Amino acid sequence: MSELFDPVLAAGAVRDEVSDAAWLRALLDVEAALAAAEADAGLIPREHADRIAEVCREGYFDVAEIGAKAVGIGNPAGPLVRELTAQAGSAGQYVHFGATSQDVMDSAAMLLAKRALVPLLEDLDAAADQAARLAREHRETVQAGRSLLQQATPVTFGLTAAGWLSGLDAAAHRLRGVRLAAQLGGATGTLASLGERGPQVLAAFSRRLGLDEPVLPWHTERSRIAELATALGELSGVVGGVSRTITLLAQTEVAEVAEVAEGRGGSSTMPHKRNAIAAIAAQAAAQQAPGLVSTLLGAMSHELQRAAGSWHAEWRPLTELVRTTGSAIYWLRTSFERLQVDPERMRENLDATGGAILSERVTTELAAETGRLAAHDAVTACAKRALAGEGELADLLAEDPLAGKHLTRQRIEQLLDPADYLGSARVFVDRVLAERVSSER
Amino acid sequence: MSELFDPVLAAGAVRDEVSDAAWLRALLDVEAALAAAEADAGLIPREHADRIAEVCREGYFDVAEIGAKAVGIGNPAGPLVRELTAQAGSAGQYVHFGATSQDVMDSAAMLLAKRALVPLLEDLDAAADQAARLAREHRETVQAGRSLLQQATPVTFGLTAAGWLSGLDAAAHRLRGVRLAAQLGGATGTLASLGERGPQVLAAFSRRLGLDEPVLPWHTERSRIAELATALGELSGVVGGVSRTITLLAQTEVAEVAEVAEGRGGSSTMPHKRNAIAAIAAQAAAQQAPGLVSTLLGAMSHELQRAAGSWHAEWRPLTELVRTTGSAIYWLRTSFERLQVDPERMRENLDATGGAILSERVTTELAAETGRLAAHDAVTACAKRALAGEGELADLLAEDPLAGKHLTRQRIEQLLDPADYLGSARVFVDRVLAERVSSER
Amino acid sequence: MSELFDPVLAAGAVRDEVSDAAWLRALLDVEAALAAAEADAGLIPREHADRIAEVCREGYFDVAEIGAKAVGIGNPAGPLVRELTAQAGSAGQYVHFGATSQDVMDSAAMLLAKRALVPLLEDLDAAADQAARLAREHRETVQAGRSLLQQATPVTFGLTAAGWLSGLDAAAHRLRGVRLAAQLGGATGTLASLGERGPQVLAAFSRRLGLDEPVLPWHTERSRIAELATALGELSGVVGGVSRTITLLAQTEVAEVAEVAEGRGGSSTMPHKRNAIAAIAAQAAAQQAPGLVSTLLGAMSHELQRAAGSWHAEWRPLTELVRTTGSAIYWLRTSFERLQVDPERMRENLDATGGAILSERVTTELAAETGRLAAHDAVTACAKRALAGEGELADLLAEDPLAGKHLTRQRIEQLLDPADYLGSARVFVDRVLAERVSSER
Amino acid sequence: MSELFDPVLAAGAVRDEVSDAAWLRALLDVEAALAAAEADAGLIPREHADRIAEVCREGYFDVAEIGAKAVGIGNPAGPLVRELTAQAGSAGQYVHFGATSQDVMDSAAMLLAKRALVPLLEDLDAAADQAARLAREHRETVQAGRSLLQQATPVTFGLTAAGWLSGLDAAAHRLRGVRLAAQLGGATGTLASLGERGPQVLAAFSRRLGLDEPVLPWHTERSRIAELATALGELSGVVGGVSRTITLLAQTEVAEVAEVAEGRGGSSTMPHKRNAIAAIAAQAAAQQAPGLVSTLLGAMSHELQRAAGSWHAEWRPLTELVRTTGSAIYWLRTSFERLQVDPERMRENLDATGGAILSERVTTELAAETGRLAAHDAVTACAKRALAGEGELADLLAEDPLAGKHLTRQRIEQLLDPADYLGSARVFVDRVLAERVSSER
Repeated sequence: MSELFDPVLAAGAVRDEVSDAAWLRALLDVEAALAAAEADAGLIPREHADRIAEVCREGYFDVAEIGAKAVGIGNPAGPLVRELTAQAGSAGQYVHFGATSQDVMDSAAMLLAKRALVPLLEDLDAAADQAARLAREHRETVQAGRSLLQQATPVTFGLTAAGWLSGLDAAAHRLRGVRLAAQLGGATGTLASLGERGPQVLAAFSRRLGLDEPVLPWHTERSRIAELATALGELSGVVGGVSRTITLLAQTEVAEVAEVAEGRGGSSTMPHKRNAIAAIAAQAAAQQAPGLVSTLLGAMSHELQRAAGSWHAEWRPLTELVRTTGSAIYWLRTSFERLQVDPERMRENLDATGGAILSERVTTELAAETGRLAAHDAVTACAKRALAGEGELADLLAEDPLAGKHLTRQRIEQLLDPADYLGSARVFVDRVLAERVSSER
Repeated sequence: MSELFDPVLAAGAVRDEVSDAAWLRALLDVEAALAAAEADAGLIPREHADRIAEVCREGYFDVAEIGAKAVGIGNPAGPLVRELTAQAGSAGQYVHFGATSQDVMDSAAMLLAKRALVPLLEDLDAAADQAARLAREHRETVQAGRSLLQQATPVTFGLTAAGWLSGLDAAAHRLRGVRLAAQLGGATGTLASLGERGPQVLAAFSRRLGLDEPVLPWHTERSRIAELATALGELSGVVGGVSRTITLLAQTEVAEVAEVAEGRGGSSTMPHKRNAIAAIAAQAAAQQAPGLVSTLLGAMSHELQRAAGSWHAEWRPLTELVRTTGSAIYWLRTSFERLQVDPERMRENLDATGGAILSERVTTELAAETGRLAAHDAVTACAKRALAGEGELADLLAEDPLAGKHLTRQRIEQLLDPADYLGSARVFVDRVLAERVSSER
Repeated sequence: MSELFDPVLAAGAVRDEVSDAAWLRALLDVEAALAAAEADAGLIPREHADRIAEVCREGYFDVAEIGAKAVGIGNPAGPLVRELTAQAGSAGQYVHFGATSQDVMDSAAMLLAKRALVPLLEDLDAAADQAARLAREHRETVQAGRSLLQQATPVTFGLTAAGWLSGLDAAAHRLRGVRLAAQLGGATGTLASLGERGPQVLAAFSRRLGLDEPVLPWHTERSRIAELATALGELSGVVGGVSRTITLLAQTEVAEVAEVAEGRGGSSTMPHKRNAIAAIAAQAAAQQAPGLVSTLLGAMSHELQRAAGSWHAEWRPLTELVRTTGSAIYWLRTSFERLQVDPERMRENLDATGGAILSERVTTELAAETGRLAAHDAVTACAKRALAGEGELADLLAEDPLAGKHLTRQRIEQLLDPADYLGSARVFVDRVLAERVSSER
Repeated sequence: MSELFDPVLAAGAVRDEVSDAAWLRALLDVEAALAAAEADAGLIPREHADRIAEVCREGYFDVAEIGAKAVGIGNPAGPLVRELTAQAGSAGQYVHFGATSQDVMDSAAMLLAKRALVPLLEDLDAAADQAARLAREHRETVQAGRSLLQQATPVTFGLTAAGWLSGLDAAAHRLRGVRLAAQLGGATGTLASLGERGPQVLAAFSRRLGLDEPVLPWHTERSRIAELATALGELSGVVGGVSRTITLLAQTEVAEVAEVAEGRGGSSTMPHKRNAIAAIAAQAAAQQAPGLVSTLLGAMSHELQRAAGSWHAEWRPLTELVRTTGSAIYWLRTSFERLQVDPERMRENLDATGGAILSERVTTELAAETGRLAAHDAVTACAKRALAGEGELADLLAEDPLAGKHLTRQRIEQLLDPADYLGSARVFVDRVLAERVSSER
């Protein structure tokens, strides 16, 4: 956590869900749930479980002190348990009963993830709603399609936004499907201290935490961490592409969109600047995810019953990955909310090549009459002349011996109208929007 | 591809599914399916589609020449289309109709992935079967559980293997759920050249390739690539943990398992060596995945309608990731097949601490009588003396004023019996095996 | 290696230096050098060393067969040694004397790197020469400077190119400083089989290979691999930034540079497209480096005397990293060679904001008279009106009560002349060029 | 920063050097140096520079407020400058004169790195001293060398430690060579606002900060960031290998070393456990570096004059990389300080294979008489019988027709003495120690 950088780098409500305070809360909730589950199974007296829950809820725990004491055992669960035991009085002997530190840390991490996903998915859904709105509103807004950063054939801005929506919905779907399970295994995953009631406690514990019940402890089977991490990484990747596209469309020379917000993105000394600060911050946040995902995938090599190092190596990158992905989607949502679309400029930019971006279409039509090669040569020659400023493409084509012979002037003009060459752009927009509605039902 | 390294680094049947030949085959299958789908939609004459299919099936294409010519446009689809057009005679004009290079490359990549997943999942299922067998056979084989590389409480080797199984099944489940979709959008994703029949062609094209039909083209919406990549990364992570555990159990000083195979893993000059070569090769392959996943996640930042660089940046890492993950699971399967388990040695290793690894249990039982602190102090003192060689732990406990008072000699011996302190190990093994059976139905 | 993809993804002369054939050559050169060094030290008869060298030079070795046999021991050095022994007749007993497989593989990898760096640095120097040429030729070519993808204050294209040059020279300097050392330690790094002559052999061996002599064997001390890998990663990073800048300057809407080459980058169907294919290929190659670097850094965790897996995990990523970085710099050099710079268009783009990009300058000058805040408000108001099309900025400023009072019309025009506001751009260009010359001496 | 996790994950003195407070300090020091340098160059009145320096030194700045306001412009330098301007009174107009936010942020980052490297290198040197001590003290301590986790030929623990020392010294050398330069370029790198005095200010500014003076601004030329990042990554990699080796040597079944410290690494419930907590924490910290390095290398793709996103993407990973590497080396140093070496146990472990680990040596000697193949077969057969418990290897060899004929019983025993087969182990230890001394001079 950084007060200096987080407002930019860890924006939005997700940050607070992975703070020290949130970790402490989760650890305490896990200890309370454990005691309660053990009471459910008749392993410890209910009153003691209640007392433990009370201390977990109302006790005072000094995060810094617990953190400082963590160096002895290597994780904060140890000193927290000692503190809890001390505060719980006679119930103290039942604190953390049968569990190992990793049970508590892993369960807390899963709980934290579950809680952090709430605001994260809220931002994600809101961003998707915005993308849907843009797709709908700009279903007919013609724009230059760009391939390899060169203008190619026309699209609609609605189709561009529909592509964004499609990616965001896919990422949301993945995140909603992530397995978040409780962890409980004791020292080596056998729950030996619980005798025969291990599975019963595990079931009650999971239920109380609102987490999946695992088939067996997963101290060194980290596929759940990987699923969570990679689903976050996927979302960051989607945000990365969308936000980059926004910054490109917002370039001074393109200017098809701009982020408009009070006191944001302007430059005090350069008033013409329209920095797409939200998209840039989204981009910056998203860029940090792949490295964190790779760390977490690499740290899956947990050995034997509990790992020497690879487990500890997960805490920070996992926390950071949730934070940075939360920030990425918060900023993308914000960018969408600020986005001012300039259909007129989109139209102007379409003229930048003097109609050449429709030459593919003229070639296709002409080819039906003349064969592909001849058509291609004729149209290319005209397009090159138009680009060189030797005339309007429509005129040059009409004057061309081959093109002029097979295509009327009117047809040529129609062929060169971007709005007439949008193929299935509208259909695709409608499909994405329709799928969205149906999946919401 | 490397003839020198692939037998070790890209072992198994997956390698051939991502070779140049496999890529060429996939590219040609895609072009054939495209022409056929366009004939289905009435866009091009059936006979020409058939002719194109024939050339795709039987024509001769020089991979090296196509590769060499790819530098002009930046991808091999371009020169392949030119070659195909030339060979298809009068049908040539319908080759690649309405498509862009990326349509063909992306669809081929998905087809390749689909095909490569067949042997990969075969190896994965076989490895899981082996893990299930080990879990079943060693349900009662007691082994020292190890935490942070130190002996902790006992487990069974069956439980260890059940954990492996659980990870492998989770990874298989993820891989089977990956969305593999056809790609078709033309220059900028509108399918403009196909007029109104774009969606119809897209549906037929997808069906013919046996790939999902996307809601809209996904030229710059790369969540599918991310899903495939991260599912592979997750499997590699699982293999990494399992193979590392095997190499640790195979250490000279531990020697609980060994890979036994003719002519494998031995050292000509050091006959005592029992290198777990298959597990080591699995580990080496798995270790290479996270970096490749991060490259692919980073390359998701495709901009506008088609990306300048990020798309090209996917081909090699995706191919390599399939290859290395295929190799990882092939080698893990092989390691399992070669695995000789030594229950006797497992038992001997359990005695390494003179019973101290069961002191937790004695403490728990004693605590019920004396309170936790007193029990802990007494047991710890005895365990330390036993470790220091001052006597057998059972004797020392029996002689201890506190422990000896509350626990009979017989009870002490029972408490120190690893086989009597396995908690839910057997239940967990049974649960994993049962879930497996049920998921197969 | 891929015949289909390498011409694009592994372009240039570096590829051949890391091929199977190059690896085989390096392995054989290492074995020959080893025998010769042992003869130098009087450990083995000279004639046998000569015979071994002869076989290494002239023998026939089937790469595929050696690769296939490598699965037994886990690396190709083993079967190569057996083959070499067989071919060397009576000298066979001295083949590979005292060495372990890793000695040969590591030394070969270093030799390979040394050889691959020759063409790589050649391309790098040529690219730097081109950047220097551009810096020199365009020392006076005014261009819009762009910050956060928005036009900011003016620069020269020469300064832009000087920045490129600076990065390339830094990367070249790092690569030239990489420690490439021979490896020789025997089974566990003691050179026990060589008795007391270990150091003597090590010295002769290193000298014969033209590699550094290490102070001790480095089987599990991988800082040399890290240095090589990260120096390559740094170069790729530099190429990534430069190539991305080129693709942005080449956008249809910016069009300040274009790659011009016969039969390259054009689109058969879209004649107006000027794809900067070389820069795009450079970008794609560069993007693949960070993931490979992270794999190699992660694989530094070699344990004990020789690692179980982390060593094997290095071969492919190291080879790929050399290849992809070689390709990145080859393509950047090519892009530079093809680069057509359009100073006129640069000038036009400078007018895109109607002079607003110089408002910082006007503000600064005016502030000296009026105080910053008042100046800022006045200039910003004018600039916003100019942007809104309400008039020329010079006119609006001249008419402004505050600006018009303190600044003459002539001064305003001078202040709005981009060429008059280049600060130290020329000096910086000269400094970079001068440093280059001095470092070459 | 996390009070809960940092004591484990960000241990040592480096953490405080990259805290919010440290960043704020660095930012203020940069602004003060800038004003002073501009006074040096006669650009602004000295008294105003002095006043600015005073405010930078003694003013009150609310980190949280500055952070919160950073969202407007996207970085904290902007609001800091506004605050500083307000506090500086009449000197306010000279605050940040001619600079851009990135100038201040980049210079502060370099200053921060410079300051953080002081305690980091202190820990690194102390760790290297410890490794040197271990190498010296255990120059004669025989230990089983292990290859692929199997016992191979003997080494000394001194040689093992010498290898550690070698890696640490290489990493220290790289870190000391990192280029840390000031940044000053203004909006687009021309220092236009400073007129002709740009270079003069740049020189004074760099000198005052104690940073290198760059040849030209490096806003989008990030090789310095890459050098710093990769040097840290290299150190983390070295720590990763060493710490992993320690945890392996500390395994219950190996027990050749242990970390001994009051209240550290013990398990309250498992008194036999000797968790090498410091080495584990070092390992966990080191594991997090490669992903961060890859993020920073990937973020080198800064475009044009100042990057939209890639710059912002550097702050957190760079800060984290310094922190985690600082923690890694702090913990390794600590592990060394706690390390209890057990030469007796090392000796015992050497006997684990009944002498088989010296069979290579017997083979070599015998081969001189009998030829390699015959010697190999004879010795291997005896070793296998010894491993199978059919007798002592020395006896079996003495009884073997071939070995017994050529080797006396006494010679066999000498050949099987690990201490007699250490090759150049001692020489290598001496060389590393000597090089260390000479480099310190």
